[in-house]
Amino acid sequence: MDLINSADLDDDKLHEECGVFGVWNVADAAAITALGLHALQHRGQEATGIVTHDGLRFHAHKGLGLVGDNYSDAKVMAGLQGARAIGHNRYATTGATLLRNVQPLFAEFAFGGFAVGHNGNLTNAYTLKRALTRRGCLFQSTTDSEVFVHLIAISLYATVIDRLIDALKQVEGAYSLVALTDHMLIGCRDPLGVRPLILGRTIGADGVDPGWVLASETCALDMVGAEFVRDVEPGEIVAIDSTGVRSYKPFAVQKSRFCVFEYIYFARPDSVMEGTSVYTARKLIGTELAKESPTDADIVVPVPDSGVPAAMGYAEASGLPFELGIIRNHYVGRTFIEPTDQIRHLGVRLKHSANRAIIEGRRVILVDDSIVRGTTSSKIVEMVRAAGAREVHMRISSPPTTHSCFYGIDTPERSKLLAAHNDVAAMAKLIGVDSLAFISIDGLYRALGRRGREEGAPAFCDACFTGDYPIPLSDTQGDDSRQLSLLSELN
Amino acid sequence: MDLINSADLDDDKLHEECGVFGVWNVADAAAITALGLHALQHRGQEATGIVTHDGLRFHAHKGLGLVGDNYSDAKVMAGLQGARAIGHNRYATTGATLLRNVQPLFAEFAFGGFAVGHNGNLTNAYTLKRALTRRGCLFQSTTDSEVFVHLIAISLYATVIDRLIDALKQVEGAYSLVALTDHMLIGCRDPLGVRPLILGRTIGADGVDPGWVLASETCALDMVGAEFVRDVEPGEIVAIDSTGVRSYKPFAVQKSRFCVFEYIYFARPDSVMEGTSVYTARKLIGTELAKESPTDADIVVPVPDSGVPAAMGYAEASGLPFELGIIRNHYVGRTFIEPTDQIRHLGVRLKHSANRAIIEGRRVILVDDSIVRGTTSSKIVEMVRAAGAREVHMRISSPPTTHSCFYGIDTPERSKLLAAHNDVAAMAKLIGVDSLAFISIDGLYRALGRRGREEGAPAFCDACFTGDYPIPLSDTQGDDSRQLSLLSELN
Amino acid sequence: MDLINSADLDDDKLHEECGVFGVWNVADAAAITALGLHALQHRGQEATGIVTHDGLRFHAHKGLGLVGDNYSDAKVMAGLQGARAIGHNRYATTGATLLRNVQPLFAEFAFGGFAVGHNGNLTNAYTLKRALTRRGCLFQSTTDSEVFVHLIAISLYATVIDRLIDALKQVEGAYSLVALTDHMLIGCRDPLGVRPLILGRTIGADGVDPGWVLASETCALDMVGAEFVRDVEPGEIVAIDSTGVRSYKPFAVQKSRFCVFEYIYFARPDSVMEGTSVYTARKLIGTELAKESPTDADIVVPVPDSGVPAAMGYAEASGLPFELGIIRNHYVGRTFIEPTDQIRHLGVRLKHSANRAIIEGRRVILVDDSIVRGTTSSKIVEMVRAAGAREVHMRISSPPTTHSCFYGIDTPERSKLLAAHNDVAAMAKLIGVDSLAFISIDGLYRALGRRGREEGAPAFCDACFTGDYPIPLSDTQGDDSRQLSLLSELN
Amino acid sequence: MDLINSADLDDDKLHEECGVFGVWNVADAAAITALGLHALQHRGQEATGIVTHDGLRFHAHKGLGLVGDNYSDAKVMAGLQGARAIGHNRYATTGATLLRNVQPLFAEFAFGGFAVGHNGNLTNAYTLKRALTRRGCLFQSTTDSEVFVHLIAISLYATVIDRLIDALKQVEGAYSLVALTDHMLIGCRDPLGVRPLILGRTIGADGVDPGWVLASETCALDMVGAEFVRDVEPGEIVAIDSTGVRSYKPFAVQKSRFCVFEYIYFARPDSVMEGTSVYTARKLIGTELAKESPTDADIVVPVPDSGVPAAMGYAEASGLPFELGIIRNHYVGRTFIEPTDQIRHLGVRLKHSANRAIIEGRRVILVDDSIVRGTTSSKIVEMVRAAGAREVHMRISSPPTTHSCFYGIDTPERSKLLAAHNDVAAMAKLIGVDSLAFISIDGLYRALGRRGREEGAPAFCDACFTGDYPIPLSDTQGDDSRQLSLLSELN
Repeated sequence: MDLINSADLDDDKLHEECGVFGVWNVADAAAITALGLHALQHRGQEATGIVTHDGLRFHAHKGLGLVGDNYSDAKVMAGLQGARAIGHNRYATTGATLLRNVQPLFAEFAFGGFAVGHNGNLTNAYTLKRALTRRGCLFQSTTDSEVFVHLIAISLYATVIDRLIDALKQVEGAYSLVALTDHMLIGCRDPLGVRPLILGRTIGADGVDPGWVLASETCALDMVGAEFVRDVEPGEIVAIDSTGVRSYKPFAVQKSRFCVFEYIYFARPDSVMEGTSVYTARKLIGTELAKESPTDADIVVPVPDSGVPAAMGYAEASGLPFELGIIRNHYVGRTFIEPTDQIRHLGVRLKHSANRAIIEGRRVILVDDSIVRGTTSSKIVEMVRAAGAREVHMRISSPPTTHSCFYGIDTPERSKLLAAHNDVAAMAKLIGVDSLAFISIDGLYRALGRRGREEGAPAFCDACFTGDYPIPLSDTQGDDSRQLSLLSELN
Repeated sequence: MDLINSADLDDDKLHEECGVFGVWNVADAAAITALGLHALQHRGQEATGIVTHDGLRFHAHKGLGLVGDNYSDAKVMAGLQGARAIGHNRYATTGATLLRNVQPLFAEFAFGGFAVGHNGNLTNAYTLKRALTRRGCLFQSTTDSEVFVHLIAISLYATVIDRLIDALKQVEGAYSLVALTDHMLIGCRDPLGVRPLILGRTIGADGVDPGWVLASETCALDMVGAEFVRDVEPGEIVAIDSTGVRSYKPFAVQKSRFCVFEYIYFARPDSVMEGTSVYTARKLIGTELAKESPTDADIVVPVPDSGVPAAMGYAEASGLPFELGIIRNHYVGRTFIEPTDQIRHLGVRLKHSANRAIIEGRRVILVDDSIVRGTTSSKIVEMVRAAGAREVHMRISSPPTTHSCFYGIDTPERSKLLAAHNDVAAMAKLIGVDSLAFISIDGLYRALGRRGREEGAPAFCDACFTGDYPIPLSDTQGDDSRQLSLLSELN
Repeated sequence: MDLINSADLDDDKLHEECGVFGVWNVADAAAITALGLHALQHRGQEATGIVTHDGLRFHAHKGLGLVGDNYSDAKVMAGLQGARAIGHNRYATTGATLLRNVQPLFAEFAFGGFAVGHNGNLTNAYTLKRALTRRGCLFQSTTDSEVFVHLIAISLYATVIDRLIDALKQVEGAYSLVALTDHMLIGCRDPLGVRPLILGRTIGADGVDPGWVLASETCALDMVGAEFVRDVEPGEIVAIDSTGVRSYKPFAVQKSRFCVFEYIYFARPDSVMEGTSVYTARKLIGTELAKESPTDADIVVPVPDSGVPAAMGYAEASGLPFELGIIRNHYVGRTFIEPTDQIRHLGVRLKHSANRAIIEGRRVILVDDSIVRGTTSSKIVEMVRAAGAREVHMRISSPPTTHSCFYGIDTPERSKLLAAHNDVAAMAKLIGVDSLAFISIDGLYRALGRRGREEGAPAFCDACFTGDYPIPLSDTQGDDSRQLSLLSELN
Repeated sequence: MDLINSADLDDDKLHEECGVFGVWNVADAAAITALGLHALQHRGQEATGIVTHDGLRFHAHKGLGLVGDNYSDAKVMAGLQGARAIGHNRYATTGATLLRNVQPLFAEFAFGGFAVGHNGNLTNAYTLKRALTRRGCLFQSTTDSEVFVHLIAISLYATVIDRLIDALKQVEGAYSLVALTDHMLIGCRDPLGVRPLILGRTIGADGVDPGWVLASETCALDMVGAEFVRDVEPGEIVAIDSTGVRSYKPFAVQKSRFCVFEYIYFARPDSVMEGTSVYTARKLIGTELAKESPTDADIVVPVPDSGVPAAMGYAEASGLPFELGIIRNHYVGRTFIEPTDQIRHLGVRLKHSANRAIIEGRRVILVDDSIVRGTTSSKIVEMVRAAGAREVHMRISSPPTTHSCFYGIDTPERSKLLAAHNDVAAMAKLIGVDSLAFISIDGLYRALGRRGREEGAPAFCDACFTGDYPIPLSDTQGDDSRQLSLLSELN
């Protein structure tokens, strides 16, 4: 009887790798940051960190696990003094989540301290790391994010902003950063704006100057009672201090390529991204999907929780009843027993259960947001059939996922992506459904208010569906083995 | 900055106190029991225990926390040998959850070992405990359930079944029990059948004789791939051994009084209780509620997760759109920072967030299953208004909760029940809604397929709504202080 | 590579199973009790517990591990309120040290609470337990000490003292008890006074009445600044309350049989037992040993720490230099790696190291207090030879240990006692020494101020050397398997 | 009631800050290193680390606490593969022992990995760190030892040895290093040889080539069954690989200044340093002390454990009986309750107890190795007087400690050293003794085989007694605050 990590239970999703948050001139900055990170918990559950500044010194706490569990210790919170803070949630992509890999990273430069949290992924990190090591730089983590820190440290420019720009010009990849120095809070997004970052405003700690907030999503502003100001723009650096918000745009203007998967699955439904409600977008995708791929059936059933809005849109457009035919169990702990062979045929139903009274004897349309490896889909279909469904039709609110992401999303290597090697008919057979349909790429763009995907100038990064990678993959297609340390550290 | 237990976050619900599960002649009995308890996790999250029997000896594990976290240790599972097992989930109602209070309880009688798990509550436990102590019995826990064990131990009858009947005849209260002796698996329900218990059947460990399952709900049968046989009847004892299932009915037949709140909130929506789908029942209650208390509005929004089916029924019956206007965050850990005064005005939104894009400018009907203290309701209403709702109307899919439960449900004392001291108009004002309505008690019965509540012979226990307690409350109205130990144990 | 428990490292000693302590009318009773238990730590290191009484309620803490580690938590100490307390240190003799086996045991009788700590062992516990279980008593621990509690609970006498006497008259074995009721502190010793218990006096919490202390050894009085009053007498019960100390002697007077091994090894050297300094006794045993078994050598080397005083006496009497030729490492943690086969030939030297500069080329007399299995002795001899000793002579300050103890000392079963099956010449060969001698039983008595052992009326219990067991062994020679629970509890 | 760390209990000693160990070509290198570190546990108990190399990769484990507790986990040991290893014990001198400060430090250079453990202290670390930070180097720990790593990383030389020499020429201070690269094991000592390092030899893993061992003390060779080869010489680098041991001496030869306190207190008594047995040295110092400062008394009593050999020498030379009048309790855990005011007058006797039977009515000479703050001495004297001593004379086997150490020993700042501000008469009064005497500095040198201290060319570093610092204190007298990080890290 082996153990399986609950993250793997019935879970065949891509995962956002990180969420970032920062505040300037806010009372109880650490508590506010903890609340903000709590709202961003869906962007990373493995580890979390906060660095604060009290006007004189930095204070830090890093820990494994959930936000709530880390910042519920009164002693920890009492140590995180100051009205300025940045925080980070991490979804670990490598086996062990070493504490020294937990962000924000902190470094002491000749001119003072510097803390930074990074959402995204650099595509030339290995190349840069090799060059920096040759120069005598010593890396303390195995994260790509540390490259930023060394590039800033060795820059020949004088000011932090100039050094940061110097560093950004050398890196390739996707990044939304929050950083804290002795004198300012900084936010920036990569030139294509692949990952989100927004600016908010709240009551200042002193009651006079405004307080400022940076966050990956607007839901974090709602959590802390801050008001939305605007998205940080692609390629923009915002520097916040007591004089207000300054903006730097060191890059040539390009057409932005925001990650379309944020709408499909990553972002929280109550967030608004680039002016569009994520929840509404998902319902519209469901509506579009119903138009493209209708079928004769009795009920529309979402795969909870992420498939719910699309299923609602689908049901509404198709005129079929929307029913909660699958129940999700939210009490799954961090690990669980793996059924032995004898009981493996039960299927893994630890997170999902079929609602037999609803399913039995019905023709069911299952709506889910994506199929990655296909492992969960086939289990769910099997479970729904075992509960007596007469027919099972699956509708997916994203195009087939055919390519890996190298811009900050945890994707299996391409060989494991079901859609990379199977057409829709083959997939339907493997998953065991009576019919299967994905929304088309143009349908997806239409649901998001475009007229379709414009070849050459698409509005989004959709590399995982199209293979059209807008940022070079210098580290030879992101071969992970290249970034491993020589050291196998045991704790 | 203090800590608040996450169980208190936004949570103004009654809670089922326990779930029970048992198997006979099943391969990997401990693993199957762990899976069954996982399916029953909603009936108790504070502690869990399993006792197995391998034909010669008993083995036990008890622990605090979730099922998944307790039975993921290979060494623990390897120690729980045998093809027979019972298990228990506990929702602790008193401050500390001492390990010695965790069930199943185990005792060594002169004729062998006896393990028992109890869902329910005895209403003459204090009285019995005092008498037993005078007789020289020593109690090892502070649970009412231990009374069963002593009564069986001192019974003058010879067989376990006769001793159990002897004990049952002395206790008052609600109970569904599973028990394991050296030679059989036992299940029983109190004469009114207040709490549920069902019997299922599966493949036997030996491939010849059948395997048997007892569980609080059918969802646990689905989890382990067992087939539903029947409800254990009110007042029935089932004794299972290699010869099959024997049934004992030592009590005079009475009209049963199954707990109506199981339909409203406690049970899992995919369970079937006394032949009725819980999910369907909830939708029908919503339908009935829409008929009784319609209102002019733009959208119907459930308070997730428990309000969802009733809201669906309400929306369907009223013709209004059903929208996910409130998002629930499932990543809340066990504790969380309490906001300081400065940020307390933010409201506690750790578990719920308003979906501003949906709410803003709309007239909203919020559907929830119950109002207990009213604390969460007013916070949610405040949050929905802050998100820009034009009007907020609240509809509750249960009658007003005016009385405490003494039959195994964790209820606040009566003085804290909002409906005990306020009429609906006063409650509407306190909660801050434009209108408030509860389903009527007759409407509730109608939704459950009756013609209404028959005075004198109602089909359910509805004491929390009516004050009509079907079982005597001998321990002076269940005064909890009477049952406290003289010992304040620190761990 | 396996683990070995550090308790087994180089450790071939008998172990005292428990230490007890109690106070009445003492400020900070819990802290004073923790200090007293710390002084008695050598009598049990596996677990510890304290029960206090604050005039109204009892408070308890039990934990595994050392006294210091358990009572260093301010919250724990703050919970242990009151001016009355008893405490217990436990050396677990069975595999797992379950928390429910940790003492003091606590029970609620009809007339109030009762906490008890026990040093010793009952020799008819299994017999009594069987009878009690038949009567309907439920045991919550697997300790023999719980028998006391049930006997008191079911006694037909009215007062606690009468019930206690009733219980004591039914048990056989060795016991020094401390107990706390709502109204008094009680201490008692078995009729033969096998285990020690002393009474002390200190400043009372109220500054008016005296404060009283009960403890296993006088070193605990020194630790808490109390003054020695007298030994509790064999067969005596002392009952302490605000009226002072009352004494009960319910047993016919017998000649006492105090455990002689307390002088040889168990007690702390700075304790005084029955008027004799333990340290001085050990030196005198060494002196007597030198007279009985002199040899030609260069240096006298103690096996530290317990062999030191006897070695000093031996060296003085023989005129040979006393040298620290073996160094003891006190930093051994709770577990340690077991050397693999490849490095096993190094010998286990984790606790002892030879001081090569002193040993090399010398004829060495090693002085130790006892040989139990002989395993450590042979390793130490091998180590001393490897360090270059020319000759190794071993002198033991106790007679050969030929029999197991059933009165509260952890002894291997008889078949594992080296001296049970080998004469001195054979033992010398097995251990690898050039000569070996034990003190004679008469020499031991002489060193303790007697004229020798008087057959029929010896002054001490010396059963481990003579097989003369002064208390019956009703449970068939203490067969441990008889006392096991039917339940294998995993935590 | 506050907590006090047990390290502070009765402990008024200087502490060695580190112990180092390394092996090359040894089977089970990690286990052997764990055993070696166990033998060196007295040189650091706060944290420990091991880095191994298996021919291809490095493996590391670091942890807080004792060696035994860290390397008793079979999974940890299984991960530490290879026949080459270095290890380190750390005595933390700053408040928190952050895991990232635990050694060996590891870095990835352009040419491969490099692990290093350091015993000693650099006196220009802050100066160098500032310069390196200006250059863009990022420090990951707050240890002075990391300076070595950066200096090697940025060196312009090609080979590891040349880079190491380049680094050593820039640092000032005391250091004994062990280092492990992909291709060799390295050991080196500072030019004055302040801290010890020895070379040993054992059976090779392959049975053909020899295995090599580096260690702080010979007792670690005894533990692992290796034979002593020689001391690594002051200023020498030894590089060990499959071709054998190469020696580099890059510094001009100077007269060595080995730390004299290693003989007095730090080293284990069974170690041999520079050809002299530590145990014998201590006895000779006691002998010399008796000659210099005799007094009329009844018994000589050591303050255990460290005062024992000197007391034996003193007793022998003075003809007075040597008695264990103070007992040491070795069961003190990591923390303990601090007595409240009410019981503070008891004195802290958690580690030491007076043996009243021996002390009472006697004139006592107490022998201890040093007086630092004097806090423990006065408590012990008070305890001895409370036990009834008629007179108390104290003799100290070191000269007065008047200056702080900056070469790797944890000393209080000078203002807290009792002897820095008081003459012997004043100290005697403060401590409460009838007479007090320290060995003279010339007496100390005589006991160690010299004719006395030769001004200008003393054989030892004795700065703590004389203020004669042989290595410059560039970082402004070792002001610790200079080395603090800007970051206050909470875990």
